[in-house]
Amino acid sequence: MIRLFVSDDLKAGAPIAPGMDASRYLIAVMRLAIGSEVALFNGRDGEWRATVVDADKRRCRLTVGSRIRVQETGPDLTLVVALVKRGRLETIVEKAAELGVARVQPVLTRRTNADKANVERLQAIAVEAAEQTGRLDVPEILPPVKLDKLLDSWDASRRLMFCDETGGAPVLEALSGVEGGPWAILIGPEGGFAPEETERLRGLEYATVVSLGPRILRADTAAISAMTLWQVALGDWLSASTT
Amino acid sequence: MIRLFVSDDLKAGAPIAPGMDASRYLIAVMRLAIGSEVALFNGRDGEWRATVVDADKRRCRLTVGSRIRVQETGPDLTLVVALVKRGRLETIVEKAAELGVARVQPVLTRRTNADKANVERLQAIAVEAAEQTGRLDVPEILPPVKLDKLLDSWDASRRLMFCDETGGAPVLEALSGVEGGPWAILIGPEGGFAPEETERLRGLEYATVVSLGPRILRADTAAISAMTLWQVALGDWLSASTT
Repeated sequence: MIRLFVSDDLKAGAPIAPGMDASRYLIAVMRLAIGSEVALFNGRDGEWRATVVDADKRRCRLTVGSRIRVQETGPDLTLVVALVKRGRLETIVEKAAELGVARVQPVLTRRTNADKANVERLQAIAVEAAEQTGRLDVPEILPPVKLDKLLDSWDASRRLMFCDETGGAPVLEALSGVEGGPWAILIGPEGGFAPEETERLRGLEYATVVSLGPRILRADTAAISAMTLWQVALGDWLSASTT
Repeated sequence: MIRLFVSDDLKAGAPIAPGMDASRYLIAVMRLAIGSEVALFNGRDGEWRATVVDADKRRCRLTVGSRIRVQETGPDLTLVVALVKRGRLETIVEKAAELGVARVQPVLTRRTNADKANVERLQAIAVEAAEQTGRLDVPEILPPVKLDKLLDSWDASRRLMFCDETGGAPVLEALSGVEGGPWAILIGPEGGFAPEETERLRGLEYATVVSLGPRILRADTAAISAMTLWQVALGDWLSASTT
């Protein structure tokens, strides 16, 4: 069944009028007709069955039926990632959605060339990936900030997994015996962190410094590997089967 | 230092004449001049320093200097992956190189739409990724075969990590206490395996059935997560720091 993220409140009998893009997707791309069923979620009310009750070429209307799944929230995990080339950043956002991250915080570092990200487009990618991966919420894409500024106002109750290209402990060893709760993963730019950044990061009391293996990884690979290992060590892959 | 994969034997003083593409890359893209140094590897003789001794617009010539690293071989790990859309397959090959896989075997499954892969192009992607990631060999891209045929002639001394979307044991639990040696990871197509394929795979005595978490993953995500977890459990991420 097609899954669609909406902003509306979801309850039995509620009328839903998807926007133009979503309508076009349902009617023109997926060829849904009146009477077809989709699954809706909004990040708050769980997942609901809904039926297409009206459709023309540009818009469709749905009516919410019964609830399929109750709302559940994934781990409180933030992916902090240096701005990298657009294609790789988009891959990272898609994978963050699939791998159960709660939010993505792009950061500018000393060696980051880019200083902008199309947050709206990244958010749309996150929505689509969330729809496909079956989760009940969508990771939030935050506007880019400078790494130094982010660290200045960091809440020390959120631990930081710092993936350090210059070396660190094997990930699972470093994360074993550590507590869950709020966490973040930090992935640097392709050129690596500047020495003064690495020094600051290594000195943070809330940071766990880890190594991602013996080879040099692209930023997208590093992000996906790190998110996977965090989920296995502290997140919802601990004992899970695929839904 | 720029790394370049070559097919020539490498020893001190040997002359190397890179092909047209490699020459163009060195001279036109990377702007190397006579006297510039690069690192060469061929998968057999380790990594060697070499100097540009001659260059015109179309070709350059190098002379091998001293050896920088002795040859080492990574784990004997095959990634068996269903043919997926070209872009995602190319991502998978790039990541297989970064994550230390020895070879990639594309397979045709019941629910695979594609029946061809551009092996030559995939091999070029593997070479480039191997150059960038710092490994001393290049993963071999094998021509696509049918999954059933591959299993018919499988050497049972090679264990198979079967990533089953319909459920399995948590990966690290399943791989703990298992022996290293020759292994393969099997990643299915986006539509999943057909029930008769799943049944056959689950019944193989050399297969370890694992789950990749509670969400539905794209084939490229599943492949990257699986390779990462295998490396952490049985491969060269066990105690490694980044080079």
